[in-house]
Amino acid sequence: MGKTGKTAKNILFVMHDQLRFDYLSCAGHPHLRTPNFDRVASMGVRFTNAYAQSPVCGASRMSFYTGRYVSSHGAQWNGFPIRVGEQTLGDHLRRLGMSCWLIGKTHMKADTEGMARLGLAPDSVIGARQAECGFDAWIRDDGLWGEGPDGYYDERHSPYNEYLRSKGYPGTNPWADFANAGRDDDEIASGWMLANSDKPANIREQDSETPWLTREAIRFVDQATEPWCAHLSYIKPHWPYIVPAPYHAMYGPNQVPAPRRHEIEREDPHPVFGAYMGNRIAAAFRNDEARQKAVRAYMGLIKQCDDQLGRLLDHLEATGRMDSTMIVLTSDHGDYLGDHWLGEKDLFHEPSVKIPLIVYDPRPDADDTRGRTCDALVESIDLAATFVEFAGGKVPDHVVEGRSLLPLIRGESPAWREFVISEYDYSVTPQCTELGLEPRDARLFMVFDGRFKMMHAEGGFRPMLFDLETDPDEFHDLAKGNSHQCEIDRLYGCLAQWGRRLAQRVTRSEDDIKAMRGRSLRKGILPFLVDGSEIDEAFTARYRGRTRARFAEE
Amino acid sequence: MGKTGKTAKNILFVMHDQLRFDYLSCAGHPHLRTPNFDRVASMGVRFTNAYAQSPVCGASRMSFYTGRYVSSHGAQWNGFPIRVGEQTLGDHLRRLGMSCWLIGKTHMKADTEGMARLGLAPDSVIGARQAECGFDAWIRDDGLWGEGPDGYYDERHSPYNEYLRSKGYPGTNPWADFANAGRDDDEIASGWMLANSDKPANIREQDSETPWLTREAIRFVDQATEPWCAHLSYIKPHWPYIVPAPYHAMYGPNQVPAPRRHEIEREDPHPVFGAYMGNRIAAAFRNDEARQKAVRAYMGLIKQCDDQLGRLLDHLEATGRMDSTMIVLTSDHGDYLGDHWLGEKDLFHEPSVKIPLIVYDPRPDADDTRGRTCDALVESIDLAATFVEFAGGKVPDHVVEGRSLLPLIRGESPAWREFVISEYDYSVTPQCTELGLEPRDARLFMVFDGRFKMMHAEGGFRPMLFDLETDPDEFHDLAKGNSHQCEIDRLYGCLAQWGRRLAQRVTRSEDDIKAMRGRSLRKGILPFLVDGSEIDEAFTARYRGRTRARFAEE
Repeated sequence: MGKTGKTAKNILFVMHDQLRFDYLSCAGHPHLRTPNFDRVASMGVRFTNAYAQSPVCGASRMSFYTGRYVSSHGAQWNGFPIRVGEQTLGDHLRRLGMSCWLIGKTHMKADTEGMARLGLAPDSVIGARQAECGFDAWIRDDGLWGEGPDGYYDERHSPYNEYLRSKGYPGTNPWADFANAGRDDDEIASGWMLANSDKPANIREQDSETPWLTREAIRFVDQATEPWCAHLSYIKPHWPYIVPAPYHAMYGPNQVPAPRRHEIEREDPHPVFGAYMGNRIAAAFRNDEARQKAVRAYMGLIKQCDDQLGRLLDHLEATGRMDSTMIVLTSDHGDYLGDHWLGEKDLFHEPSVKIPLIVYDPRPDADDTRGRTCDALVESIDLAATFVEFAGGKVPDHVVEGRSLLPLIRGESPAWREFVISEYDYSVTPQCTELGLEPRDARLFMVFDGRFKMMHAEGGFRPMLFDLETDPDEFHDLAKGNSHQCEIDRLYGCLAQWGRRLAQRVTRSEDDIKAMRGRSLRKGILPFLVDGSEIDEAFTARYRGRTRARFAEE
Repeated sequence: MGKTGKTAKNILFVMHDQLRFDYLSCAGHPHLRTPNFDRVASMGVRFTNAYAQSPVCGASRMSFYTGRYVSSHGAQWNGFPIRVGEQTLGDHLRRLGMSCWLIGKTHMKADTEGMARLGLAPDSVIGARQAECGFDAWIRDDGLWGEGPDGYYDERHSPYNEYLRSKGYPGTNPWADFANAGRDDDEIASGWMLANSDKPANIREQDSETPWLTREAIRFVDQATEPWCAHLSYIKPHWPYIVPAPYHAMYGPNQVPAPRRHEIEREDPHPVFGAYMGNRIAAAFRNDEARQKAVRAYMGLIKQCDDQLGRLLDHLEATGRMDSTMIVLTSDHGDYLGDHWLGEKDLFHEPSVKIPLIVYDPRPDADDTRGRTCDALVESIDLAATFVEFAGGKVPDHVVEGRSLLPLIRGESPAWREFVISEYDYSVTPQCTELGLEPRDARLFMVFDGRFKMMHAEGGFRPMLFDLETDPDEFHDLAKGNSHQCEIDRLYGCLAQWGRRLAQRVTRSEDDIKAMRGRSLRKGILPFLVDGSEIDEAFTARYRGRTRARFAEE
């Protein structure tokens, strides 16, 4: 027992959606103050080189939840179901006696075909967990209740819309009409349009998504049987970019960082980069007024997240749980916000693929690192391994491809990976069509060794290469010229090594294999003896003895 | 309807175990006559460059049954279960209305842990198919009923032993005591010892494994509802090397091909090759007398297989099924038989990794290629794709990684692969321990482009390289010197390309993805509009309208 006088038991795994790594004051944002994120950073370790396995919600999250690379679990984009039977945090933690709960968003799509093939009823306990990526759902709400000519984007029941209706908001979709819309006289001013992003959302602040989900988290914590892992997964600051008062007006145009972009990026760009620069999203973020409104709302949304985080931390402290709960703050990916002439995420520049990651471990052996940063190359799959170790288990490294961060958090210097990988499948996007690719070729890979970052694109394109030491803003694509072939070759070597990784031998662990050795011999498989004298008689004894002659002679 | 007057319906997918590609008269064996294999070759196409996905039973078979590379399905060695939910021939063919039966061996190990995790009862239809790699078992017998100090190698019920007991063979394991043993006066002369391989097995020929399984196949065919796919999977000519009379005496020492080996292979060999040359198996095959006895028995076993194939073909002809049944003859891998100073299989020399493959398609559009050979680079995973197409389906190429051979059989010249891959996981073997490797590093990859064959070994070893044009016997490892770096780099590039393949995105087909395009927009996800004028009003209509003001103002 350490100085806390309590055994650490629980994991509060908080994810914000589309939260840029550098939009926190502890990460150096010039104007945005996030004292509660900073408070956790001062209690724990902030990882300054943490990367999402994919800069898109669904694929990234499935990597967090399985501890496996995107090409290993195969759910390569939003709405690509993770296949039935793929092991998740829920499988690993429940085996160790820890429950595993969801409060919020996962972007999980159930593999209903696979479940039907195996006869799994969606309403059974096993079936429900399969459908929820291994979680027991305290509340599941993915927070995109869009409606179009083809119906709702998300056909599921919306707990948040139900909550809003219970509070008197009218209509079938108050998420769209109030939580994510302002008001223009008596007309809905939809938050989908960036022109409306400076308006306050037409909702009481306490009814907006972030406070609502925080209350759900507190409600969960107050009744939960320990030990638990709770994935508190906020929908914000993900678009629509609109936030209720007073957050809508907290940041003025002068507090919006200028876009980090350079004319040289538009000169002979990599074809995939070029296609993304040409899309509607990029165009919206080149509109300075629209961009300013969006970023101001984005900052307001983050400020609201920070305030709600404070409420939650206060509650944990007040109820004596701070000493027994690991707290993790992270995001599924970033947001370009106009940097590199782009909006959204998708490609591998730092604003998109790098993620905030703060880990507070209450146990005494983490005391030496409190308030520190760690610049090790971290991947989002490392959290699953970290949680398994925290829960007292041995990381099943034939299934979970990430590595536990606990040694780093204890201040040790373990042998560590030399490069990180991220992947992006853009087969569903207009850019794939525009580039004339078949879906299977619309795939990108990032290899980053801490200094050089390479993007490989399937489909016969050249790579992209950045030197973050000399060009931290990633403006100068070194693969345009003929220089740096040596770095390119080296990073291709890393990618090839990764491509040969052991990812699917999920039914036999390293220990299982060691235990199998010699088993055939012990079970009487004795081929390739000349006369039996080569091995101990104990093995051949069963094959000696008197026999009958008649069969061969009949 | 073609000239046969019948629609082709069924697939007879015959596998012999450990049958070398060149131990058939149609493939040029100097002494062994296999008129029935040759008969099918004269009716169909013989593929002269067909390769097993792994030169070991279990891994290779799982690739045949899933149409997926070993690193994709993950069952990398014997006894590594294929994971629950992995799709198999049974899934693909039943979806097309074709049943899928097993008669004989699969080497499948059920993923009992995975099944328990998903609540699948082993005795349910779904559970039984999961446990049998997708097959309905007409009969399952893997044919290795060894016994040692730790009990039986295979704990399952043995239909073959039961058959032998019903015929009056005594004891619990007549497989070992009679079918795979000779007699030395009144003593068992076990077939495990090569010194006994020249003796006749102490069993009536008609009771030995190959005729027994052939009768089972005929019994299956006579009652089966069409269309069916039947995997007739013989245990022989796999060791123990012993065969009943008269086959034991059909081939004399002069008819045994000399081992293809060269002293230069033992000079500074690749460490993995060196470790294999140093094992007990290799030692047994360097004993010339033992080798001769083994090869003579092996040839006798093949001759018996050929005779039984003849019986089966005659039966198909006599019952009018020859016009409606595709017949495939192949093997899971080869057998070194002393070549390259090795016994068994495991590495990637031709005697080990190349497989016989003969495909007879009764339909008229295959008439132009009857009796021909085809030298395209074929992989064992191609059969699953071939069967799906034969059954009238579209190959689900997001799951099945092989390519249908039917275009080649129709005499077309489709764009084809430029290299084949094979893999070997030797983590369970003594060679792994001897080389001081962790299990995950005991992995080998072969890349063969039709001329150059490279072996990559994980664990920091150099590669091996052979030029089969100038050195068809594969004696001269070109990677020993400093030459050929260009070929090595090129083949590493092929391996890297393969490593990035799309293998796990099994829940979304290429067509699914194309259909998903634009779906978000049609379902009301409209981010990154500046003011909505960018898109058709139909998409934004739902987000307009009168609203209420009170919420933001309360």
